[in-house]
Amino acid sequence: MIRRYDFGHPYDTGAVVRQLPVCEDRVPHFAVAQDGCRVSFSAPLGENDMIFGLGESVRGINKRGHLYRAWNSDDFSHTENKASLYASHNLLLFSGKTGVFGAYFDDPGAVTFDLGYTRGDEAVITSENGDLSVYIIEGDTLIGLVREFRHLIGRSYLPPKWGLGYIQSRWGYASESDLRTVVKEHRERHIPLDTISMDIDYMEEYKDFTWNRETFPDMAGMIADLKADHIRVMPIIDAGVKVAPGDPTYEEGMANDYFCRKENGDVFIGAVWPGRAVFPDFLREDVRRWFGDKYRPLLETGVEAIWNDMNEPAIFYSEEGLAAAYQKADELREKNIAIHDYFALKDAFANMSNSMDDYRRFFHVIDGKPVRHDKVHNLFGAMMTKAGAQGMKAVRPGKRPLIFSRASFIGAHRDGGVWQGDNNAWWGHLLLNLKELAGLNMCGFLYTGADLGGFGCNTTEDLLLRWLQLGVFTPLMRNHAADGTRDQEIYRFRNWEDMRDVLTVRYALIPYLYSELVKAAEKNDMMFRPLAFDYPRDEDACRTEDQLMLGDGCMIAPVYEQNARGRHVYLPEDMLLVRFRSSTDYDLVPMQKGHHWLRLQLNEFPLFIRKGHVIPMAGAAEYVEAIDASALTLLGWLDHGTVITLYDDDGESDVIDFQAGLTVIDVQVKDGVVAARAEGRTVDASRVVLD
Amino acid sequence: MIRRYDFGHPYDTGAVVRQLPVCEDRVPHFAVAQDGCRVSFSAPLGENDMIFGLGESVRGINKRGHLYRAWNSDDFSHTENKASLYASHNLLLFSGKTGVFGAYFDDPGAVTFDLGYTRGDEAVITSENGDLSVYIIEGDTLIGLVREFRHLIGRSYLPPKWGLGYIQSRWGYASESDLRTVVKEHRERHIPLDTISMDIDYMEEYKDFTWNRETFPDMAGMIADLKADHIRVMPIIDAGVKVAPGDPTYEEGMANDYFCRKENGDVFIGAVWPGRAVFPDFLREDVRRWFGDKYRPLLETGVEAIWNDMNEPAIFYSEEGLAAAYQKADELREKNIAIHDYFALKDAFANMSNSMDDYRRFFHVIDGKPVRHDKVHNLFGAMMTKAGAQGMKAVRPGKRPLIFSRASFIGAHRDGGVWQGDNNAWWGHLLLNLKELAGLNMCGFLYTGADLGGFGCNTTEDLLLRWLQLGVFTPLMRNHAADGTRDQEIYRFRNWEDMRDVLTVRYALIPYLYSELVKAAEKNDMMFRPLAFDYPRDEDACRTEDQLMLGDGCMIAPVYEQNARGRHVYLPEDMLLVRFRSSTDYDLVPMQKGHHWLRLQLNEFPLFIRKGHVIPMAGAAEYVEAIDASALTLLGWLDHGTVITLYDDDGESDVIDFQAGLTVIDVQVKDGVVAARAEGRTVDASRVVLD
Repeated sequence: MIRRYDFGHPYDTGAVVRQLPVCEDRVPHFAVAQDGCRVSFSAPLGENDMIFGLGESVRGINKRGHLYRAWNSDDFSHTENKASLYASHNLLLFSGKTGVFGAYFDDPGAVTFDLGYTRGDEAVITSENGDLSVYIIEGDTLIGLVREFRHLIGRSYLPPKWGLGYIQSRWGYASESDLRTVVKEHRERHIPLDTISMDIDYMEEYKDFTWNRETFPDMAGMIADLKADHIRVMPIIDAGVKVAPGDPTYEEGMANDYFCRKENGDVFIGAVWPGRAVFPDFLREDVRRWFGDKYRPLLETGVEAIWNDMNEPAIFYSEEGLAAAYQKADELREKNIAIHDYFALKDAFANMSNSMDDYRRFFHVIDGKPVRHDKVHNLFGAMMTKAGAQGMKAVRPGKRPLIFSRASFIGAHRDGGVWQGDNNAWWGHLLLNLKELAGLNMCGFLYTGADLGGFGCNTTEDLLLRWLQLGVFTPLMRNHAADGTRDQEIYRFRNWEDMRDVLTVRYALIPYLYSELVKAAEKNDMMFRPLAFDYPRDEDACRTEDQLMLGDGCMIAPVYEQNARGRHVYLPEDMLLVRFRSSTDYDLVPMQKGHHWLRLQLNEFPLFIRKGHVIPMAGAAEYVEAIDASALTLLGWLDHGTVITLYDDDGESDVIDFQAGLTVIDVQVKDGVVAARAEGRTVDASRVVLD
Repeated sequence: MIRRYDFGHPYDTGAVVRQLPVCEDRVPHFAVAQDGCRVSFSAPLGENDMIFGLGESVRGINKRGHLYRAWNSDDFSHTENKASLYASHNLLLFSGKTGVFGAYFDDPGAVTFDLGYTRGDEAVITSENGDLSVYIIEGDTLIGLVREFRHLIGRSYLPPKWGLGYIQSRWGYASESDLRTVVKEHRERHIPLDTISMDIDYMEEYKDFTWNRETFPDMAGMIADLKADHIRVMPIIDAGVKVAPGDPTYEEGMANDYFCRKENGDVFIGAVWPGRAVFPDFLREDVRRWFGDKYRPLLETGVEAIWNDMNEPAIFYSEEGLAAAYQKADELREKNIAIHDYFALKDAFANMSNSMDDYRRFFHVIDGKPVRHDKVHNLFGAMMTKAGAQGMKAVRPGKRPLIFSRASFIGAHRDGGVWQGDNNAWWGHLLLNLKELAGLNMCGFLYTGADLGGFGCNTTEDLLLRWLQLGVFTPLMRNHAADGTRDQEIYRFRNWEDMRDVLTVRYALIPYLYSELVKAAEKNDMMFRPLAFDYPRDEDACRTEDQLMLGDGCMIAPVYEQNARGRHVYLPEDMLLVRFRSSTDYDLVPMQKGHHWLRLQLNEFPLFIRKGHVIPMAGAAEYVEAIDASALTLLGWLDHGTVITLYDDDGESDVIDFQAGLTVIDVQVKDGVVAARAEGRTVDASRVVLD
């Protein structure tokens, strides 16, 4: 059951899709305090209580012990101390001796979550503006709370099936020849690939909806050629529009008053990649329609996928902020710049980016009234995603668009996916990747994954290999890296064959992964779950932070430490270990419930299948459309027969006919022999392990 | 056996104390290549080869897979991608199928260590200047290589025994009343404490060897009062000397030409805390003698301990660097600052600190000749430590000084300790603390530890508690935090009693820890060892990165994850688990060799004692001199008798009479009863577990 409590004047954020009546009684579970316009919600924490939620955020699956802040931030250094990443997913799930409950803070402004940080025995959530709806979710189980919440916020976005293919990306692909070379190198080595993504380099002077006609003289022709090779092209679109007289996006936006303005009525100018830029007021429906429609020429050129970036929005500086930095520098010129002045000088330039001063300088128009940006900051990226998704659907009606975004807010989970932002080539970020999957799934973001190999800093051959071994399981599987870092396409490395072998597992599992993804969306379920959700009475499972349940039958446990040749793993029940080297080379090892040390060479990675379950694998393929899901091999460990269902469809229709898409796979065990059948498919059960 | 090979014109760095003849044959193990003045040493790496060494550095105990750079750096953000910390400890130990060998690169300039980073199957070490001695160490075991190397570089520094007491520190203790309050709060709660340390706030305008006469009106009186309360005072000394006409340090140094000069003969000016500062040429013996002698008035005021900081040296900016930053800013003023200019503008100010340009601007004088700083950069901090240690010894001849430093080079391990620099309140840095212990011990730095609780960022009550549980075992045990972060003295926290209880274990173990520390110094041994060193044929032990062997008989395995209620631990042999809550409250659990999951509540931490060994514990004490080591309790797990030795002495004499200091503790097991005796001590063996 969910109850709604309103404070101040809540905005319609679009996060929830079901209108609940506003309760007038006291908010359960929390003590509420008002301090000016701030409203705080406090709850005591028992010694061993756990807290889940917060979607895309740093630190543990159990969020207890840190101060988080809902404030979409362009900050590439995801260190432990950070309070904010690119998203604001204000869901908390509390689990303690007396049971579980959840709370969603539907507030588009800044909200802090002091979860046992100031005091270890208290959680305090504070809305800085005090205009919000709080939804209190009651239930018996953590997964039950999630399902209730997901029902409230509506069905998750689903990508086309080919969106589960491997995506190669880099900030630095600057020409047609760059793209063709990357594709060629993959195809020649039979490294599977479905999509190649273009970062800002393809644009003309970083102007949205343009491309450089010199380096991409025939974009349509190039896209058609790549398509013939079963490769899709995915360009980036940024939130800021270059101040460029003559540029149609700039001119139309100016003519129609689509850009955010300052209090004095001037259009707000902030710098991004192109320097001076203006910001569409994505919170307006007419602006979204206009901006979404700008995607059309790209799509008509053959583009089939888009990613939206810098939409927190990232603002390198405003005219005012830059002037203030210069003023500070001028003040200090010729002085003996000692300790305090030294930091002030450096900070003047370092802190002019994404500054709160700037976020207070411009306004949106909501219901005809100006609203200062900082009050609704966390909606900006979500509304840009909505604009893009609408624009893409208009061009290809009835088809699912492939779109994902950096910034997000709950609600955007219905419109597109998210990638986990500008991570680094750090082993610690491989583990963070796993942990974020759990939080994102709770909040409805199912199509997600991290930049495999790491975006910033230089990767190494072992880090990329290990990261691909996790990426095998994430719906969005993209290798992406920043300008100036080491080339990190698979074929650049000495051990590229091991990496290619990892990808063969991905493609063999796509029928299963796609089925689990659609099921999770249809049933408001999580594709990836903390072990605490499945085994709430198992203390060791509840505290497990480096494994996740996958779908109905599996568990993942990647290696995330350099030079490791194994890892500790906790099995909350008997499971079959599949120790993969490739889709055709793997060991099957039945393992008992309990703590284990698992040997895993560099080219090996585990998937665990719960005893009593089976999962299907397809054969090899180099792109999604080539996957032959009519011939499946089952993996599992059984002592008696079982029945599983596999969802499949045309991979692109917007309407999901869930029941029609289900195939029943019936597995029977008789006299020590296992046999399986499914309508319209051949099923090989010879690899199923019998007890 | 160690062989020496020279390249170019090696500097006398003071790292080694034994003169070896220069070999003329080819360097074994490495292919040597010359490129201009650069010299590279390449070695192939087998699939499972491991590399140890590099002292204080980021990442794993096994250093393989990263690019490190010997370049002492003032960089507070110890993320995975960093190449350098504050120290250059150029020792590598290779371990593979064909055996082990070591190499020490005695080069005071920049050296890069590409250890399977560019190519996974190759290590390439490059001296950028090509003037170095390479020492190739041959032996049968990793620990054997270390002993050979340590014999070459001379006996490690030993602190006075009270240096093992708990040290409370903070950048921010600005007055006598601040210090008195901190001491009072500890004493009132019976939280053990031996030393209180002062950061830069005590000085007058950040001038070395001064103190603020307003906030410390009677330094001698305060120190005497605190000493009566068994508390020592430890001020900081920085490398840069303020440009302050009238200040004796500045005036004397200028009059005697003690400061580094530029090529044009002007004294080099770089900014640190006081703004414009000059840098003593610590590489000159006469300058060291002068600077060390400047410590005398502080010592005569009652100070007994000193820490040296900012001696990489940290340079916030030079006059030239600042001018260049301003010039870049002026160039860009009024332009549309787009992508490249934006980064250039920010970097102009961000990168003016600790810049290579500055390190090339000034000169030392070696043997009467000018040597550009960057050629010998990594010696600077070591030579400052030498100056300080000599100065302290001159005031208290025959006594060990308590001194530790941020920057270091091998050789400085004979003069003082090091702390692990400006870490952060990150759980990841708790684990890094452990890993650095292993590397530092290999290189002779035994008196070391990290800033417990974390220096930068805000700590939490659970992080500080867990970190203290590791700090219990590190010879240098200091809680230190940066200005602007949360107060992190133990008494600030809700769970201070748990923290105090952790300290009771520290003080009870000091007789054992002191004994192991002195033994390690005397025998050129490591107090903390990777498991790979003790169990080289045990593959799981060799890859263990989160446990260390301690002394002869113990193993440590801290909890380093937030919200964890246990951890995986690998026992390479049967061991007794001591699950400590306090020095009097603990469980004794015999455990079998193998992988285990260990339950550990927040207030619990483990120490493992190898079966067949015992260790002694003393009773409670609130300062080191109050420890009664004449009555000891033994902990261990035996099936037959054993003999251990315990070293002890007056705790301060510079000359160690090792044999005279050893007490034999004879443990006998007869008819299921264990009894122990030692000359001059009462020994309680009733807690020893019998098989």
